[in-house]
Amino acid sequence: MPDFTLYEQRLTALLQKCQAKTVDAIVVPASDEHLNEYLPEAWKRRDWLCGFTGSAGELLLLNPATVPVEKPCQLFVDSRYYEQAALEIPTSLVGVSKVGLEGHPTLAEALEQAVKLKTGGTAGVKFTIGVDFNTISSAKFTQFEDRLDKLPNPIEWLDTGRNPHWLDELKQAAALHEALFPALQPVFSLPDELTGCSLSEKLSKLRQALVANNVGILPITKLDEVAWTFNLRGADVAYNPVFIAYGLVTLEQAFLFTDAARLPLGVQQSLAKAGVQILPYTHFFKTIETFLTSPAESEEAITTWFDCSAHTAKLSKWITGCGTPILKKKSIIESLKAVKSSAELYGMRQANLQASVAITETLAWLWHRGETQQVTTEKQVADFLEGQYLASGASGLSFNTIAGAGANAAIVHYGTPSAEKLLDLGDWFLLDSGGQYPTLAGTTDCTRTTVFAGKASSKMKQVYTAVLQGHIACAGLTFPKGTTGATIDAVCRQPLWQLRLDYGHGTGHGVGAFLNVHEGPIGISKGYSVPFEVGNITSIEPGYYEAGWGGVRLENLYEVVERPQVGKDANRWLGFESLLYIPFERALIDETVLTASELAWLQAYTRAIEEKLLPLLKTDLAKAWVQNQRF
Amino acid sequence: MPDFTLYEQRLTALLQKCQAKTVDAIVVPASDEHLNEYLPEAWKRRDWLCGFTGSAGELLLLNPATVPVEKPCQLFVDSRYYEQAALEIPTSLVGVSKVGLEGHPTLAEALEQAVKLKTGGTAGVKFTIGVDFNTISSAKFTQFEDRLDKLPNPIEWLDTGRNPHWLDELKQAAALHEALFPALQPVFSLPDELTGCSLSEKLSKLRQALVANNVGILPITKLDEVAWTFNLRGADVAYNPVFIAYGLVTLEQAFLFTDAARLPLGVQQSLAKAGVQILPYTHFFKTIETFLTSPAESEEAITTWFDCSAHTAKLSKWITGCGTPILKKKSIIESLKAVKSSAELYGMRQANLQASVAITETLAWLWHRGETQQVTTEKQVADFLEGQYLASGASGLSFNTIAGAGANAAIVHYGTPSAEKLLDLGDWFLLDSGGQYPTLAGTTDCTRTTVFAGKASSKMKQVYTAVLQGHIACAGLTFPKGTTGATIDAVCRQPLWQLRLDYGHGTGHGVGAFLNVHEGPIGISKGYSVPFEVGNITSIEPGYYEAGWGGVRLENLYEVVERPQVGKDANRWLGFESLLYIPFERALIDETVLTASELAWLQAYTRAIEEKLLPLLKTDLAKAWVQNQRF
Repeated sequence: MPDFTLYEQRLTALLQKCQAKTVDAIVVPASDEHLNEYLPEAWKRRDWLCGFTGSAGELLLLNPATVPVEKPCQLFVDSRYYEQAALEIPTSLVGVSKVGLEGHPTLAEALEQAVKLKTGGTAGVKFTIGVDFNTISSAKFTQFEDRLDKLPNPIEWLDTGRNPHWLDELKQAAALHEALFPALQPVFSLPDELTGCSLSEKLSKLRQALVANNVGILPITKLDEVAWTFNLRGADVAYNPVFIAYGLVTLEQAFLFTDAARLPLGVQQSLAKAGVQILPYTHFFKTIETFLTSPAESEEAITTWFDCSAHTAKLSKWITGCGTPILKKKSIIESLKAVKSSAELYGMRQANLQASVAITETLAWLWHRGETQQVTTEKQVADFLEGQYLASGASGLSFNTIAGAGANAAIVHYGTPSAEKLLDLGDWFLLDSGGQYPTLAGTTDCTRTTVFAGKASSKMKQVYTAVLQGHIACAGLTFPKGTTGATIDAVCRQPLWQLRLDYGHGTGHGVGAFLNVHEGPIGISKGYSVPFEVGNITSIEPGYYEAGWGGVRLENLYEVVERPQVGKDANRWLGFESLLYIPFERALIDETVLTASELAWLQAYTRAIEEKLLPLLKTDLAKAWVQNQRF
Repeated sequence: MPDFTLYEQRLTALLQKCQAKTVDAIVVPASDEHLNEYLPEAWKRRDWLCGFTGSAGELLLLNPATVPVEKPCQLFVDSRYYEQAALEIPTSLVGVSKVGLEGHPTLAEALEQAVKLKTGGTAGVKFTIGVDFNTISSAKFTQFEDRLDKLPNPIEWLDTGRNPHWLDELKQAAALHEALFPALQPVFSLPDELTGCSLSEKLSKLRQALVANNVGILPITKLDEVAWTFNLRGADVAYNPVFIAYGLVTLEQAFLFTDAARLPLGVQQSLAKAGVQILPYTHFFKTIETFLTSPAESEEAITTWFDCSAHTAKLSKWITGCGTPILKKKSIIESLKAVKSSAELYGMRQANLQASVAITETLAWLWHRGETQQVTTEKQVADFLEGQYLASGASGLSFNTIAGAGANAAIVHYGTPSAEKLLDLGDWFLLDSGGQYPTLAGTTDCTRTTVFAGKASSKMKQVYTAVLQGHIACAGLTFPKGTTGATIDAVCRQPLWQLRLDYGHGTGHGVGAFLNVHEGPIGISKGYSVPFEVGNITSIEPGYYEAGWGGVRLENLYEVVERPQVGKDANRWLGFESLLYIPFERALIDETVLTASELAWLQAYTRAIEEKLLPLLKTDLAKAWVQNQRF
C-alpha cells in the first residue's frame, strides 16, 4: 500500500498554485523533454505528483475555484492500466478515466468539458491551460489546440517552462530533497562490428535524405535516435541503454549536445574524426536558432525536418519563431533504425537465444516448484529470472519484469512483482520480461503464461489455446511487400473474437537493437501504417485479460524475412522468423481444437527449439521440461 | 475491335490545341461535375476522347512541343483495368500506366516528371496544366498542388471550364453530333414506407448535425446524396437510379437545384410542404454565394461544411472566394446513408433474395448447357441473366454484367460480354452482376465463378478453394464494435497469401439502398477507417486473377448485425449476415483442405439456401442444381 499522504500533499499544493495563479487547468504529461517512454527518475514529474507509475497516462488538474468537479484531478489511462491506476493514486483527489470505455473521456474531451463547465457556454470567457511545452509532442499539442479552437471561448496556453516539479514554489520546496536533473552516467561506444554501420556512414545516409527532401537541418531529440545515430550508448534511463543528449545534423556539420566530460577520450576523438562537434546539452535550442537565422547571404532560407510526434511543442514554437520553412515528416532516423543491419540481426538472434535459455531455465525451475508444491512468490520468480538473464550475458533487464500470479495476470503492465503474493495451485502465472545484451548489442522481450502445478481449468485451456491460435495465425503468415501492421492485426485477434474475447493493447511493437524495447515505425495494430521491410523486428503478443480472474499473453519477437519466390510472380513475399525458442505450455493447450496447420506450426517450432535451444540449456531439469512440452 | 481512328483524331486535335494554347499538359479525369463513378453518357469526356470505358483512370495529354515523350498521352489505371485498358485505347498515341506496379508512375508522379522534362531542372521556368476544376475533387487537386509546389518551377493551373469535350473549338466541332448535357429523365419519389425516414426527418437530422458542428450551410453535390436526402430517384445515369441535381441545406432553408419540369406535381407539392425550394440546376453556385455573402447584419460569418473528397476543386475555390469559414469534414450524409433504416434493410434483404433466384436460375441453366455441351457465348449468359433479373422484379441492372470466360475471367472489370467468346469445356466462367429493384427499394451485387461443364484442373480447385476460404473467414468473423474494414482486410486474404497469391482490388464496398452499387464510408480494404455499425451493408469479394489464365471472384452482400452478448462482457459484438443465398461451386472446392469450421459455415449456408431460396426457385432444373451443390 503506497503512502498516499505524500501525493495528496503535492496535488493539493499544486491545486492551490492553480488558484493563486488563476490557471484553470494544468496538464502533466507522462513524458519528459525527450518524449521518452522510460524516463530518468528525476524527470518522472507525473509519478512524483500523483504516484502513478504507468508508462503512459496524462494527469489533469482543474482549478477548484473556477471548474466545479467532484474530483479536481483526473488520470487518463489506456487499457494496459485500467486495473493498475486506481491502486497507485490517492483516489480521494484523483479520478481515473479508462480511455476507450464508454463514458470515459479522453484528455481532450475532459478539457473541452472543463471549458464548458467554467464558462457555462458563455462565448468570450477565457480559459487558461498550463503545460510544460517541452514535455508534450507537437502533434498532441496541435490536436488539443485544434479541438479547443472550435469552442466559442478563447483558450490561453501557458508554457509553465521547465519546472521539474511544475510550479516554482513547489519546485523550490521539493528541490531540497529531490534531484532536478538526472545524474549522468558514463557513455560508451558500440564498435562498427556490432552496429554494422559506422558513424560516418550513418551521417552520410542522413545527409542523402536531407538533400532528397530539400532540407538543411535535422534536429534529433529522441534519446534512442541520438544513441543510434552516433553509435553510442549510456545508462541515464533505467532499462534503456540511452543517454541524455540532443543531436543535430546539417549538410556539412553534426553536433552532439551532452556533457563532454562523460565521453571517454577515445570516443571524443572518433566523434571529432567523423566531424561531430560536442557542445553542452543546454546549447541545443540556441545552436538551431543561430544556424537558421544566420545563413550565408547567397543562400535561401534553410528548411528544418520536423517530426511532429517526436519533437516537442516547444521545439516547434522555437523553429517557427525563426521564420524559416519546416518540412513536417516522420523521422528518417526512425525508419532507418527499424531496418536492422546484418550485424544487428546477428546480435538480436544471439541475444534472444540467450534470453530463451534464461526464460526456459526459469520456467523449468518454476514447473519443478509446482510439481513439488513449494511455496513461491511472484518476486521469487522475478528474482530467479533476473539472475538467469545476468548469467546469460545480459547487463540488465530491458523493462521491469511482469510476474503476475492469479488475478495479477490480468494487470497488463503489472510492474511490481510482490514478495507476498503466492502462486496458487492451478492458477495463472504470467511472465513478461526482457534483457539488454551489450556484448551482442541485442535487446529481448518475451512473454510466457503458465499454470502453477499444471492443473488448468477448461476455461483456462480454452482461452490459452485461442491466444496461441492467434499467435500462430500471425506468426505463420506469408504476406506481400507493402503490407502494414494495421492490416494484419485482426488475423491475430480472430480466434479470440470467435469466442467474443479481445485484448485492449496492440498485437506487436518494433524493438531496438540494444536500444529501447519499444520503437517505431513498424508494429502490429491499427495505428501502424508503415509497410514491413526485411530486417524489421516486431513482437507478436496477443493476450486476454479478465479483471479478478487472470490473463494470458504469449509473446515472441520475430524478424521480418523474405520468403522464396514462387514461379514468375511479380510480388515479393515476406514472413516472420522467430528470434525466441521457448516452449508453449502443453498443459494449457486444448489440442482437439487445433487445425492441422496450427499443429504443423507447433511441431516445426518444437523442432527448432530442440535444435537451437536444447544444446544451450544448463540444467537437466530444463532439458527434461523442454522435452516434456514437445509436439 | 474498336475503331481507334476516331479516338486518334480526337486526341490529335486536342494535342494540337495544347500547342496552340501553349498549355504543357491537360488532365482529363474520369469523373464529371458530380464526381460520379457512373457518368451520364454526355459527360463521359475521357471515354469520348480516348475510348477507355473503365470506371476510374485519368488521362494525361502532354504538349509534344514542350514535353518530349515517346507517347504524348498516358492513361493511369488501377489493377482492375490492367488487362482491359490496352484493349480499348489507340496505343499508338496512349501509353498505359498500371499504377501499383513497379516502374508505373501515378498521375502525380508523371506530372512531376513532365515538369522536369520540360524545364530540365531549371528553376523558374513555368509549367501550365489545364483541367476542368469542376470534374476533380478538391482533395485530389490539393494533392497535386502540394506535390508540384515542392518543385523549383512555378506551376500554373488553368481551369479549362465546363467544356464537355474540353477545348472550345473541339467542342464546337463535336457538338454538331454529340449531346453536351444529358437528356433529363422523369424523377419519382420513394414512399416513406420504403425509405423508413421521411424528407422532414432527414432534414431535421442534417440540421442537428449542422448545429452540433457550428455549421450554417451544407452543399450536396453527389447525386446519390441528393437522391437519398430528398427521397427521390431518377434515371439520368445508367445503372444508378439518380438524377442530375444539386442540393443545399441550411438551418432554416433547403433547396433542390434541378429542372422542376421533370418533377411530378405531387412531388413538387411534398417538397414544398417540407420547406424545400426548387431552383434551376444552374443556380447552385450563385445561391451559395448569395447565402454566404449577405448574412443578416447581427450574425457571424456562416461556416460551410465541405467534404474535400465529395466536392470539386471548383466548389472549393468558389467558397474560398466568398471569404467565409470552411469546416473540412467527411460528408454527414454519407455516414447517415450507410446506416440503413429497418425499412431499407427489409427491402435490401428481399431484393437480394430475388437476385439470388435470378442468378441461381442462370447458373443452373448454364450448368445444363455445360452438361449437354451446348455452344454458349459470354453474351448469351449475360442476356439470359438480365432476363432473369427483369423477371424477378428488377427494373434493370445495377452495373454492366461482367461475364468473363476463360482468360477473360482475369479482366477484373471486364464490362462487355462478347457475342463471339465461347465458354470452353473445363474453363473458368466468372459472373458478376446486380439489379435495381424499385418496388423493394433494393440494390444487389453478386459474383459467382464456375467451371464450364464441371471439369476443373487441380490448380483451379486450389485457387477457388483458397478464395472461398478467405470469403468464409471474413463472412464468419465476429468482431468488436469499433472494428474498421482496414483491420479485417487481411483476414480475407490470408488463405491466398499462404499460396503466395493475392488480389489487387479491395475486399468489399458499401452498397446503397436502391442507389449506387458502390458507396462509402464503410467497406473492407486498407483505406476504410470508419468502424462498422449495425445496419451497414458491405460486399465481401475476395478473388484471384492471372492474366491469360483466368480468375475467380466470390462475392456476397452482407448486412452488419449485432451478435448476442456473452456474459457481462463490456464489448458489443458484431458480425455479418448474408443477403444473398446462392450455392458455391462444389466442382471447384477441394474439401480435403477445409477446416471443420469452414465446413460448418458452408453447411449452415447450405441450410439457409434450402430454407430461403429453394421455395422461390421457378424451374426444376434450378432446384436440382441447388440440391446437387449441397454440403
